[in-house]
Amino acid sequence: MAPRLTSLKRVFSSAFQQVRHNSAPADRKWPEAKNKYVPTSGTYPKGFLVGTSHAGVKASNTTKDDIAMVVSEEPCAASAVFTKNIFQAAPVHTSKQVLTKRHYDGIRGVIINSGCANAVTGSLGLEHASTMSRETDKCFGDVQPESQTLVMSTGVIGQRLPIDKITAAIPKAHAALGATHDHWLAAAQAICTTDTFPKLISRTFTLPSHPETTYAIAGMTKGAGMIHPNMATLLGVICTDVKVAPLALKALVRRANSGTFNSITIDGDTSTNDTVAVFANGAAAPEETPALALPAINFSLEPSVEHQILRIRDCSPDTLAFIKVLTTFMEDLAKLVVRDGEGATKFVTVRVQTDNKYLTAKRVAMSIACSSLVKTALYGKDANWGRILCAIGYAPGIMHSVDFPMFTRAGDPVVYDQVDPKRTSVFFIPSDGSAELKLLVRGEPEAVDEARAKEILEMEDLEILVRLDDGPVAKQDDKPRQNRKRKMIEACVWTCDLSHEYVTINGDYRT
Amino acid sequence: MAPRLTSLKRVFSSAFQQVRHNSAPADRKWPEAKNKYVPTSGTYPKGFLVGTSHAGVKASNTTKDDIAMVVSEEPCAASAVFTKNIFQAAPVHTSKQVLTKRHYDGIRGVIINSGCANAVTGSLGLEHASTMSRETDKCFGDVQPESQTLVMSTGVIGQRLPIDKITAAIPKAHAALGATHDHWLAAAQAICTTDTFPKLISRTFTLPSHPETTYAIAGMTKGAGMIHPNMATLLGVICTDVKVAPLALKALVRRANSGTFNSITIDGDTSTNDTVAVFANGAAAPEETPALALPAINFSLEPSVEHQILRIRDCSPDTLAFIKVLTTFMEDLAKLVVRDGEGATKFVTVRVQTDNKYLTAKRVAMSIACSSLVKTALYGKDANWGRILCAIGYAPGIMHSVDFPMFTRAGDPVVYDQVDPKRTSVFFIPSDGSAELKLLVRGEPEAVDEARAKEILEMEDLEILVRLDDGPVAKQDDKPRQNRKRKMIEACVWTCDLSHEYVTINGDYRT
Repeated sequence: MAPRLTSLKRVFSSAFQQVRHNSAPADRKWPEAKNKYVPTSGTYPKGFLVGTSHAGVKASNTTKDDIAMVVSEEPCAASAVFTKNIFQAAPVHTSKQVLTKRHYDGIRGVIINSGCANAVTGSLGLEHASTMSRETDKCFGDVQPESQTLVMSTGVIGQRLPIDKITAAIPKAHAALGATHDHWLAAAQAICTTDTFPKLISRTFTLPSHPETTYAIAGMTKGAGMIHPNMATLLGVICTDVKVAPLALKALVRRANSGTFNSITIDGDTSTNDTVAVFANGAAAPEETPALALPAINFSLEPSVEHQILRIRDCSPDTLAFIKVLTTFMEDLAKLVVRDGEGATKFVTVRVQTDNKYLTAKRVAMSIACSSLVKTALYGKDANWGRILCAIGYAPGIMHSVDFPMFTRAGDPVVYDQVDPKRTSVFFIPSDGSAELKLLVRGEPEAVDEARAKEILEMEDLEILVRLDDGPVAKQDDKPRQNRKRKMIEACVWTCDLSHEYVTINGDYRT
Repeated sequence: MAPRLTSLKRVFSSAFQQVRHNSAPADRKWPEAKNKYVPTSGTYPKGFLVGTSHAGVKASNTTKDDIAMVVSEEPCAASAVFTKNIFQAAPVHTSKQVLTKRHYDGIRGVIINSGCANAVTGSLGLEHASTMSRETDKCFGDVQPESQTLVMSTGVIGQRLPIDKITAAIPKAHAALGATHDHWLAAAQAICTTDTFPKLISRTFTLPSHPETTYAIAGMTKGAGMIHPNMATLLGVICTDVKVAPLALKALVRRANSGTFNSITIDGDTSTNDTVAVFANGAAAPEETPALALPAINFSLEPSVEHQILRIRDCSPDTLAFIKVLTTFMEDLAKLVVRDGEGATKFVTVRVQTDNKYLTAKRVAMSIACSSLVKTALYGKDANWGRILCAIGYAPGIMHSVDFPMFTRAGDPVVYDQVDPKRTSVFFIPSDGSAELKLLVRGEPEAVDEARAKEILEMEDLEILVRLDDGPVAKQDDKPRQNRKRKMIEACVWTCDLSHEYVTINGDYRT
């Protein structure tokens, strides 16, 4: 079984001294090297409108739009995934409530502000988030007992929202609604904080049962980064004009999120505000088209649908096609966040393959991607595979941590994943498609060609490939596994390196 | 309940551009600012001898001693704690075997080399570690079927030991054995890698049953750091001339380790070689003195003794006294490692108090101490308490991580610790003993005096205090907890900041 050689085609241009702002970059101003990530046109889903306005959430921001509104002309199905941090910000509480009370249906859209996270703001913060939702509803002259608008905030933590400024700016964003590329790009800019460029993608697709209909999906995201004195946040808004049954959308979003937005890491810190929301309004669907649905069996997988491979063999071809579209789209959007990671000079793919559990592979991949030592070595272009190995060996759920035992209510210890050092192999996969570099083969170190390693590490895109079940199983395994068809499960995590610039950005004294 | 104001008396002198070597600093050469951490004399335990010699493990090291031998004149009780990383180095395997096969008794000492970790070196590596143990035994003319000597290695990972050089150097270290302060200091230097100064402590103590006898305890350690192209390691060797029953020593070392060496973190990476060994030879104990023992009940706590408060009420006053001596000693030794953390400009104590479980407090403390964002903020002297809060909120075992669920064999989910954001308070405790600075009180942000915050953060020693159960319990709690006497449990973790210098040290291309 040869390692899968994945060519990473996009090249990330080096920008050691990155310009970081406190809010979105001024209109159309981002480093020239980032132009390749910012689209100049797009095809956007029908029936969605986007508007921005200036509230001046941060007092220092006197000109840039910091309010974005994304809405569907008709109330639609929506779902979202939220941070699991126990200190969840007020907008997270509010958005969760909106979705739950409306059963993931009849949602109008989302109102977003940058410049203040409305996090750790007590009961007044909850009122503010609720006010933002309500004021947006009012713009549509359609105030119902249960609010229809999700809320997202990003920026300074522990400070109150200047709610009057925001409520004054919401009708202006509504008045500015439109469906052009410029509207979408302006919104992608308005939600930025420390991002160096706006992150927007759009594309079209068809479904097999009625290939004559063209659907569109578009989305924007903003990066995880920190600026004085706040904690920034990962936010994502994705809109599509396909028709999806609300509860199916919920399951599909969770599933797609696991291998995409939940598979990126910049610095291992989970923010209080992280939210990715998906809206599906069916505006492009021919009238008679049934909503994409999931077989009943899949709903029983909740709430742990993320951990399980959705039993896709039971899904219709249309649903299967949409799963693929959504997952690929979210992956591309999530990768843009890593491209713009604070201080990043490298885009790193950590791919882990196993014969056993997806979660084992993901835990290993995440442990490598989070290691400061691995990340500084990559920054320094140092083929220090010992650090990769070390990070595999202490991965949570794999290393038996004496200080962090976990028990059930009944006191039973948890089961740890099994990783056999003697069956572990590690490779560098060059981004130019040339031959892999073997670092460790089944637990035995390779004599590494340092010149070749240096060559690979000079590239800005890099892949670390780990195989956890390389070679034949140990003799004592009495099952005839050699004769069984081996399944190969793979987890990917995307990250960046840890640079001087990261320390500079995050160590900056608040001024 | 006022927070405990702990004055951190020792001040860590700033040394932004630290000189880091590939092996121990040349004899008596370390930055002047570190002089205060290096003793000029000491009182060492009776019956222990220490010797060093030059092997030249790293080809570039042509002069400095890189072999250290620490032995008891009479075989003695010994125990050790080891890394839990699944990629355990060969010396870890060998030392474990020696201890187990000899039932933690009849141990002669330890042989240590710096310059090469003998990690991920396959079966030949195991042979090499075993050879080091055997060759030391031979020096004493007392080769038994089961080896008597522990082995530690630190330095480059994935390279073979130059075993012939080492076997030639072992008899030289034996010939150089002695018991003076200079011998001990030379050994503390010989085991260094990226450390900027040798770490050695000694002190004397008495036991209540025979206060006329003076016992001594001495130990050396080396820091966690990385240098091209290797991963360094935490090693510790502690010797005392008190008489301890072997299995009691095992339990006591594990217990003391939990709150000391297992409570420090530089960069969150658990090395493949970490080992802390304690030897107790009883050489100072009057002949009729019984060995310190533990009541039988305590042995039943194994193997999870770390997680449980040793039922010390059943221990003898002598054992209790020794527990205190050993724990304080190991804490002071462990803190020296943090003082010398790579690139460190601050010494940070994270103290977490709870009414509930020790483990909850420790998980929270460790999560804060490991956060890159908290550590860069401290480096930048930024009172960014949002990051502290954020790290509490995603602490493993507290945040329900969707991608890292843990189950028992029977499929039952684990119990997560409960932390209530509305009862969480966060303070900065100045190291000069002046008044604390409130950052968050029971979930509500304080209006922080920025000038005062800056003052506190200018100090090189800093304490972050978190109280998880601040104020009265919520009304829905039906138990009359208000009337119960509240116990206050505390966990401390020591760490340093994350600086530019850390990135420089660890990003250095191997030359």
